[in-house]
Amino acid sequence: MEQTLTIDGMSCGHCVRAVEEALSALEDVQVVKVEIGRAVVEAGPGAVGKEVFSAAIEEEGFQLTAVTPGR
Amino acid sequence: MEQTLTIDGMSCGHCVRAVEEALSALEDVQVVKVEIGRAVVEAGPGAVGKEVFSAAIEEEGFQLTAVTPGR
Repeated sequence: MEQTLTIDGMSCGHCVRAVEEALSALEDVQVVKVEIGRAVVEAGPGAVGKEVFSAAIEEEGFQLTAVTPGR
Repeated sequence: MEQTLTIDGMSCGHCVRAVEEALSALEDVQVVKVEIGRAVVEAGPGAVGKEVFSAAIEEEGFQLTAVTPGR
């Protein structure tokens, strides 16, 4: 199931790469695309909760502000 | 001799780190500090030309716009 993560605090290509790597490291998550301000991931329904995405993103110094279905 | 490099295109801490690492890798250059938009380095007079700084900074995707003496 595709989900879009809305992310605050990203400003450049380094940030995109940091988010991409953090999300890729999560089990059962496939990164579809990352751009400044948002990431689209594919994950089994309910497989990964918002808290898990949030923790991974905050660890990189950004803020997860929303998770919405689809892209 | 301290010199200040004015740099375009930096936006975040990742950029600061990238510039810091690129300048630190130059021979005869000591990095005094790097912040968004500028770096202060210590280098022997004439030891490292503007072209060398410029190449290192462009390789990281930024633009060196000025080199001025002091900080």
